[in-house]
Amino acid sequence: MSTLKQLKICIVTLVLTLLSNVAQAQITNDISHNEAFKALLAAKKNAEESNVLVNIAVVDAGANLKAFVRMDESYLGSIDVAIKKAKTARYFNIDTGKLGELTQPGGIIYNIELTNQGLVSFPGGIPIKNKDGKIIGAIGVSGGTIEQDRAIAIAGAKSIID
Amino acid sequence: MSTLKQLKICIVTLVLTLLSNVAQAQITNDISHNEAFKALLAAKKNAEESNVLVNIAVVDAGANLKAFVRMDESYLGSIDVAIKKAKTARYFNIDTGKLGELTQPGGIIYNIELTNQGLVSFPGGIPIKNKDGKIIGAIGVSGGTIEQDRAIAIAGAKSIID
Amino acid sequence: MSTLKQLKICIVTLVLTLLSNVAQAQITNDISHNEAFKALLAAKKNAEESNVLVNIAVVDAGANLKAFVRMDESYLGSIDVAIKKAKTARYFNIDTGKLGELTQPGGIIYNIELTNQGLVSFPGGIPIKNKDGKIIGAIGVSGGTIEQDRAIAIAGAKSIID
Amino acid sequence: MSTLKQLKICIVTLVLTLLSNVAQAQITNDISHNEAFKALLAAKKNAEESNVLVNIAVVDAGANLKAFVRMDESYLGSIDVAIKKAKTARYFNIDTGKLGELTQPGGIIYNIELTNQGLVSFPGGIPIKNKDGKIIGAIGVSGGTIEQDRAIAIAGAKSIID
Repeated sequence: MSTLKQLKICIVTLVLTLLSNVAQAQITNDISHNEAFKALLAAKKNAEESNVLVNIAVVDAGANLKAFVRMDESYLGSIDVAIKKAKTARYFNIDTGKLGELTQPGGIIYNIELTNQGLVSFPGGIPIKNKDGKIIGAIGVSGGTIEQDRAIAIAGAKSIID
Repeated sequence: MSTLKQLKICIVTLVLTLLSNVAQAQITNDISHNEAFKALLAAKKNAEESNVLVNIAVVDAGANLKAFVRMDESYLGSIDVAIKKAKTARYFNIDTGKLGELTQPGGIIYNIELTNQGLVSFPGGIPIKNKDGKIIGAIGVSGGTIEQDRAIAIAGAKSIID
Repeated sequence: MSTLKQLKICIVTLVLTLLSNVAQAQITNDISHNEAFKALLAAKKNAEESNVLVNIAVVDAGANLKAFVRMDESYLGSIDVAIKKAKTARYFNIDTGKLGELTQPGGIIYNIELTNQGLVSFPGGIPIKNKDGKIIGAIGVSGGTIEQDRAIAIAGAKSIID
Repeated sequence: MSTLKQLKICIVTLVLTLLSNVAQAQITNDISHNEAFKALLAAKKNAEESNVLVNIAVVDAGANLKAFVRMDESYLGSIDVAIKKAKTARYFNIDTGKLGELTQPGGIIYNIELTNQGLVSFPGGIPIKNKDGKIIGAIGVSGGTIEQDRAIAIAGAKSIID
């Protein structure tokens, strides 16, 4: 090995070692299953009041499924859509409808939906925040119009800070 | 076309017509989302009483996800296991533990777990029946020992007929 | 709708409402990227001292990839094995080698490897804990013998609490 | 067999034998893991100076993952996007943003993103070259705006020839 190469490796190792000396754990806030139920029920209540049949999914801070319900007679195809809306909202901390504005042909992140084993980029996915404004999970709703899905998801997310 | 061939076609057509005259839609018995919630809560209560942290999934008569919850601190890997247990129980109308007796090396349906995008063949998946004994869905539990998972799943399924 | 059914729904709703009244967020501990680098470098150092060429993956508390390195000349097939070892260790908070004792033919969770899009149930995946003993992620190592992989993974995980 | 056919086989065999006499292995230039770390750290430094939280992936000449880091608080969805950007840049030896110009509706390689288990065709993926201008790998960055991701990726790639 050349002296130059050895020197380079030495520098990289040094930088990494310095970095690891300042290593500290993160404290994250994660939705509990009781909160997930609360969001689910608030969303379901909103859907019932609007006479809409939906699937509702809640994911945690790590974008893993936490709670789910499919209302009777709602679309079978909405199971996966609701789960993917919730995951997408947490993957990018975004209202999924906002994402869709950027993914159209000519959009700056066209076809990003093909990543992460399938994203959903139309309305109905909303991040869930705690009272301090920290994102602790997300909710996804599918089965009504995109406006209805979004309103129901917001009702679910909002219930956590009420 | 030969006369014989024409005669054959005629008979086939006749039989099919007769058959379709007696054709009737099926009446299926399907779990409602309130029943799914009931099973979920009964299972969760049982798990809490046993101090076990589990994921619980309920699927409907079509083996589609109907309700789900992941208890706080339960295994992340149990999300998929619980859902697959419920699906497996409904796919073959079987206690998943019974299936496992047949899938071992040398078993009559060795490696059937590779079908249906992954089955689970150890205990924790139980069909859900209504009071008439008709299967209306299934429940899958993962997170405890296989005995605990099975007991919790049975508690959930039993709540529907109590 | 029958009065009995309405009563049932009412009770389920009541129970869920009571549950959601006690809803509280969880505080989780998650590995930072500096800690992930620290574990990666400690594992790599151990591998180099043992003259083993490995892939090393670190996942966070949500089982999502946090840091990765493939050492020169190490197996290409070990990229996925290392990542799946880390994920498996976090999915079930377990030394992956322990899992393997239970997944053999006749084992109590035979073929669980088919869930979660593929688990690895032989040694080389280890949960990473912080000084308080809380699991904050996991490390997976692949490329050497299973004993070497496991020793290297332990060296990586241990560096976080030293 | 006819004499003509025998003659043909004879010629084909001769040509193949001649060809194989001049057969030589390829010498490929491949990024080392120390170079991959160097690019990763240069990109990370650039991201920190720009106050952007990103995921950074480096792939080797074979488009296989070589090194990866997800900065704390960066998007979970960017893990897969960063890796796919790096792979895409190496698959076609192209700045991923350039690819996007050709994949729009009506474009000459419309929807190529659906191949290779998902490509990313917006900015943030850059081939990594050595001092001789040979491509030895690629870097993918995701988490900021597409302009930021691209600038960070370029900083990473550039560090190898500085």
